[in-house]
Amino acid sequence: MSLPDTQTLLLEQDGPVLRVTLNRPESRNAMSLAMVNELMAVFAAVADDPAVRVIVLRGAGGHFCAGGDIKDMAGARAQLASGESDAFYMLNRRFGEMITATNAQPQVIVAVLEGAVLGGGFGLACVSDVAIAADDAQFGLPETGLGVIPAQIAPFVVQRVGLTQARRLALTGARFNGAEAARLGIAHEAVPAAKLDERLAETLAQARRCAPHATRVTKQLVLDTLVQPLDQLLDQAARDFANAVASEEGSEGTMAFVQKRLPKWAE
Amino acid sequence: MSLPDTQTLLLEQDGPVLRVTLNRPESRNAMSLAMVNELMAVFAAVADDPAVRVIVLRGAGGHFCAGGDIKDMAGARAQLASGESDAFYMLNRRFGEMITATNAQPQVIVAVLEGAVLGGGFGLACVSDVAIAADDAQFGLPETGLGVIPAQIAPFVVQRVGLTQARRLALTGARFNGAEAARLGIAHEAVPAAKLDERLAETLAQARRCAPHATRVTKQLVLDTLVQPLDQLLDQAARDFANAVASEEGSEGTMAFVQKRLPKWAE
Amino acid sequence: MSLPDTQTLLLEQDGPVLRVTLNRPESRNAMSLAMVNELMAVFAAVADDPAVRVIVLRGAGGHFCAGGDIKDMAGARAQLASGESDAFYMLNRRFGEMITATNAQPQVIVAVLEGAVLGGGFGLACVSDVAIAADDAQFGLPETGLGVIPAQIAPFVVQRVGLTQARRLALTGARFNGAEAARLGIAHEAVPAAKLDERLAETLAQARRCAPHATRVTKQLVLDTLVQPLDQLLDQAARDFANAVASEEGSEGTMAFVQKRLPKWAE
Repeated sequence: MSLPDTQTLLLEQDGPVLRVTLNRPESRNAMSLAMVNELMAVFAAVADDPAVRVIVLRGAGGHFCAGGDIKDMAGARAQLASGESDAFYMLNRRFGEMITATNAQPQVIVAVLEGAVLGGGFGLACVSDVAIAADDAQFGLPETGLGVIPAQIAPFVVQRVGLTQARRLALTGARFNGAEAARLGIAHEAVPAAKLDERLAETLAQARRCAPHATRVTKQLVLDTLVQPLDQLLDQAARDFANAVASEEGSEGTMAFVQKRLPKWAE
Repeated sequence: MSLPDTQTLLLEQDGPVLRVTLNRPESRNAMSLAMVNELMAVFAAVADDPAVRVIVLRGAGGHFCAGGDIKDMAGARAQLASGESDAFYMLNRRFGEMITATNAQPQVIVAVLEGAVLGGGFGLACVSDVAIAADDAQFGLPETGLGVIPAQIAPFVVQRVGLTQARRLALTGARFNGAEAARLGIAHEAVPAAKLDERLAETLAQARRCAPHATRVTKQLVLDTLVQPLDQLLDQAARDFANAVASEEGSEGTMAFVQKRLPKWAE
Repeated sequence: MSLPDTQTLLLEQDGPVLRVTLNRPESRNAMSLAMVNELMAVFAAVADDPAVRVIVLRGAGGHFCAGGDIKDMAGARAQLASGESDAFYMLNRRFGEMITATNAQPQVIVAVLEGAVLGGGFGLACVSDVAIAADDAQFGLPETGLGVIPAQIAPFVVQRVGLTQARRLALTGARFNGAEAARLGIAHEAVPAAKLDERLAETLAQARRCAPHATRVTKQLVLDTLVQPLDQLLDQAARDFANAVASEEGSEGTMAFVQKRLPKWAE
């Protein structure tokens, strides 16, 4: 596998798992334009690679991501002064492209949420397949308190927690911890910070027991339920099911089950 | 009322309640093609019968339903070998037709969830109107662990628990108990297994206090909110409301309320 | 600001907060046609007024709202007898117009839920941005028990708590308290009745820290996520973001953040 060179991300391949670490700890991993572009490049590089089955997203230095980067904002503001009025639009929209791509990434995305999970970092957390939070992580949408709006992340927050909670969080800027994030469904569970590594390892072991190709097809299917008419979706799903059963994975999975052993992909 | 003959289901009429018991305890009530067809026949037979107001779905022998039937799968696989490549497609799609029909069944569907509630059984649980789980019931979507996909049930799982939880459950194959199922909203409540009968009886008494025709119209209305534009829906709902008020049920309900007595349908 | 004269509502302006009290305590603030019309008139009067940033909805006499008004129903029934068959339709549909308007009101809507929160009152609670319930408030959809249907409120209940809980609540008429309402997501939190004023004050202080115009744009954005295609929505949101950054609010918010002081709108 050929991964792009990155300045803002640490990349580490660990068997079928690609660990991606947001690595700007001096700014609590604030989401710079460079980081957005590097995330997109990494995701694109591995999208079609069956050897990468899981992507772990985490932040360096005890924080996940504190949101947008103030320096980038200042840079955009300078361009604005010089007449390039689209700088903020481009900066913001590009972040939305990244989060949209992350949501649809074929691999299983596991997010480890600790420290600051704010603004854009909150939005990124909302498109993970499995999110494990530290009890004392700090979540919130501070945008309206700063006079701006949670523009690119609002739809993903609504998809994540529903309209009811999303409207309160976006309109009040409320701060809350990881335990509350789990109660609201932003994270799937919250554990003491000292237990994050252990829970992550268990989650990765669990994901590894799932057949690689079947998992990809299932993720696409789950996402498609939001946009396709039901009958059409069920027709396609039945065809995908028939193909899965007839595939090597389907044979191996059934045989392993009957023989009471692990399937090859889980070894 | 004329009910079809069934080999895989026990049927018992109890006043306005039809009790349907999945009855293949030797295979933890695995969902065979015969069972799918019999469920559809029973649902169709009572759909327009106002005397049947509630349908209770339960499994014999302490399990709800362990999912698809391996023998049917083997049968389909044999057909596949002989060139009938559509056998798995047909088998799977037919299950989806059944679950789609169950979701829209005009009666109130009450599911009693104990023991195995896996795969297709999980999907069937997800289209009930009221689901009561035993604390120690076992829930999960084992499909991807077997190399296949939760094809026909994915959309109903997403409707049941939302995208956030559905993507985790489908992609990790996580197993969990009835208490967690209630927390996630798959079941409406979880009780100790020894209390299931008592809670079922209370639920049936509660459902009986609701006017039969108004309940049918309300179920249709609730389901329609997912597919109809809001203004059009509210127009139709206001006409349904006016009809309900002018109906015999509407008169009886209002009169019973004023006279502080039970309405006729609740006696 | 010029507010309409009202007979069924108490109106009180308190800085950027408009307090609207349903004031028919003799009938537990049952929602009469007059009250529906007055609510719509008040909402329309302040919709475009930037000086009103928050609207608090509460009931007089310890109850929020017990639902539709029986006297109005009787009046409509009399008209029905005299051949005006549309009276119930009009009465019901008008309530739906009000609740639809409340949902989209540009201000932040805070609902204080105590005592009876039933039928139409339940529906009104479901379109608030922040809902604080008393632990012992009484929630429920009694319609089907009276032989009628929760016609105008069903879609808002589904939006509020999802299909799974909505179908049970609508079909069984179950009654439950404020703590359960918070668990289901009808309210955002439940507190002892004696603490309602304190929590309301904290919520208003929190809302006040959010920039007035950015909050309006954010509310529209959050609601739009339910009806607009994603790409189109994100394009518009990025333009709104760029406008917000370039605005006076955006400058003041960023400057206040850097200078570690409250922005002007929060003073």
